[in-house]
Amino acid sequence: MKWTRRHLLAVVLGAVAVLAWGTQVHAQTDQLPSWNEGAAKQAIVKFVEATTTQGSPKFVPPAERIATFDQDGTLWVEHPMYSQVVYCFDRVPAVIKAKPELANVEPFKTVMSGNRDAIAKLSMDDLFKILAATLTGMSVEDFRAEAKKWLDSARDPRWKRPYTELTYVPMQEVLKYLRANGYRTYIVTGGGQDFVRMYADEVYGIPPEQVVGTASGTKYGYTKNGEPFLTKEPKLLLNDNNAGKPEGIYLMIGRRPFAAFGNSTGDRQMLEYTKAGAGERLAMLVLHDDAQREYAYGPAQGLPASKVGTFTQALYDQAKREGWVVISMKKDWKRIFSFEP
Amino acid sequence: MKWTRRHLLAVVLGAVAVLAWGTQVHAQTDQLPSWNEGAAKQAIVKFVEATTTQGSPKFVPPAERIATFDQDGTLWVEHPMYSQVVYCFDRVPAVIKAKPELANVEPFKTVMSGNRDAIAKLSMDDLFKILAATLTGMSVEDFRAEAKKWLDSARDPRWKRPYTELTYVPMQEVLKYLRANGYRTYIVTGGGQDFVRMYADEVYGIPPEQVVGTASGTKYGYTKNGEPFLTKEPKLLLNDNNAGKPEGIYLMIGRRPFAAFGNSTGDRQMLEYTKAGAGERLAMLVLHDDAQREYAYGPAQGLPASKVGTFTQALYDQAKREGWVVISMKKDWKRIFSFEP
Repeated sequence: MKWTRRHLLAVVLGAVAVLAWGTQVHAQTDQLPSWNEGAAKQAIVKFVEATTTQGSPKFVPPAERIATFDQDGTLWVEHPMYSQVVYCFDRVPAVIKAKPELANVEPFKTVMSGNRDAIAKLSMDDLFKILAATLTGMSVEDFRAEAKKWLDSARDPRWKRPYTELTYVPMQEVLKYLRANGYRTYIVTGGGQDFVRMYADEVYGIPPEQVVGTASGTKYGYTKNGEPFLTKEPKLLLNDNNAGKPEGIYLMIGRRPFAAFGNSTGDRQMLEYTKAGAGERLAMLVLHDDAQREYAYGPAQGLPASKVGTFTQALYDQAKREGWVVISMKKDWKRIFSFEP
Repeated sequence: MKWTRRHLLAVVLGAVAVLAWGTQVHAQTDQLPSWNEGAAKQAIVKFVEATTTQGSPKFVPPAERIATFDQDGTLWVEHPMYSQVVYCFDRVPAVIKAKPELANVEPFKTVMSGNRDAIAKLSMDDLFKILAATLTGMSVEDFRAEAKKWLDSARDPRWKRPYTELTYVPMQEVLKYLRANGYRTYIVTGGGQDFVRMYADEVYGIPPEQVVGTASGTKYGYTKNGEPFLTKEPKLLLNDNNAGKPEGIYLMIGRRPFAAFGNSTGDRQMLEYTKAGAGERLAMLVLHDDAQREYAYGPAQGLPASKVGTFTQALYDQAKREGWVVISMKKDWKRIFSFEP
């Protein structure tokens, strides 16, 4: 009896394998339908086939299949301002309501003035003060409730849609294609880890434990009723940008990625670190060169550097030199957003 | 043709589900064979059934099934000294060879003297100096090579075996039982994250990205040839003990565990935080009360507190008050080590 069940199971599993294999081969012919044929699409497919085909000299065991993605400018729109920075500015009135003494203190006074020119001139130091005031000093639950409210109601000024709809369809296809081939996809973002974790699962299918971002510490404490809770502290643990990206990957994942995707100088070290590993590695950079469908910015476009997402000429040269693949939004992507035809 | 294949696949998958279900029910009758029948074993089985049975009011979706385990004293022997502390002491001669000026500086002078009484009296501050000197200031690859050499050669003084063999069979069964039911098992240790990641996969089946531990920062840099590498820095990012455990869980996982296992006051906050979540939660503490087969120590045993693993009377009282389950090594475990009958 026992033998019979096992035997049956083996036969049936064999049948499933054959059928599933047929299905997979069939489906794989078009897993990146929003990509035009070209070097970028080819590089992705070649990488996946080389690292996941049994018997390939570049085969990577499933447990080691890690792919990391920058978020702002790589998976969704970052121009003209990171959505999280917009969130922080939007939160300033509530912070001042809770602490009226800040109304006459810079940089809050300038933010409240609504004077766009003055706001545009705020320094990085000012920006950090605003981030600290709006993102910390509250329980993690209160933070989540506030962020959720904003994510549900805020709209991008150009497309008049929730920020969470402004993701790039071709990159969503890459995420799914990699996952269908046993890769675990991580976000490695300069943005706030807690903020991105709010929506990464719903928007990208990336669960909280696979989001690495700029992180502040928390402090464990108790309510009056003795219930434990965590408070977000204005203490920076990880500045997950530039060199902070490989450092954050080492801290949070402890494995070197086999593929990494970025779009700016903030991703340079992550791509270097990825490519420096043994075997087949993929490093890709999204170039924003489509002023009509999205934006075109950065020196590599011969255009003035924006405050965000600086794809410098030096980065472009390094990509060419080190075999990183540059993705042209204009040439490589058939379609950018899901809400467009 | 397409329809036929799909149809066939559906039928065959249905057959597999029925067969697999039969197999699982059969296998589940004895997934914790090294546990004696009693409240502890019952609590584990009851928790797993309540949280993984479809339709149960306490059902937990697979993505949220997180279980966290302290390591030293919970998954393996911590007495008379944490293995990582032994490693650090063993590394002191090599550190002094590289930096001879330390030979006459405390606490290194005392360690080199070999005077056990003097060594036993070293302060926590001294210990931190030794940890910093022996665990940082080298590339992560050099650290891994050194740690591997030691793990392969070092032997526990009582059992004369590699430390990696001194894991508790009943706890290994709990890890496997939880994983077989869709739980992801994490180590959350006061020990060094990098050190535990060296062997956690081989010893417990827990991959590096599921090890949360005390972590120092790294610094990204380049070799003379321009190859990027990470250096371990003497900068503490996360002291993953006491309140640091829930803080570390929030940072690295971003989800509250449904089950948590510990053995000392260092695990108290992790267990509190776990139990404070909604729905069915399991909190368990291993009590070292088996002087013959392992060790008996700590005030809850009416014995002098050891320097490590303090299971205080207050912790014992809190466990009783808050419904945490105490595991008696002596009464609950049929067998402790795999190398014993």
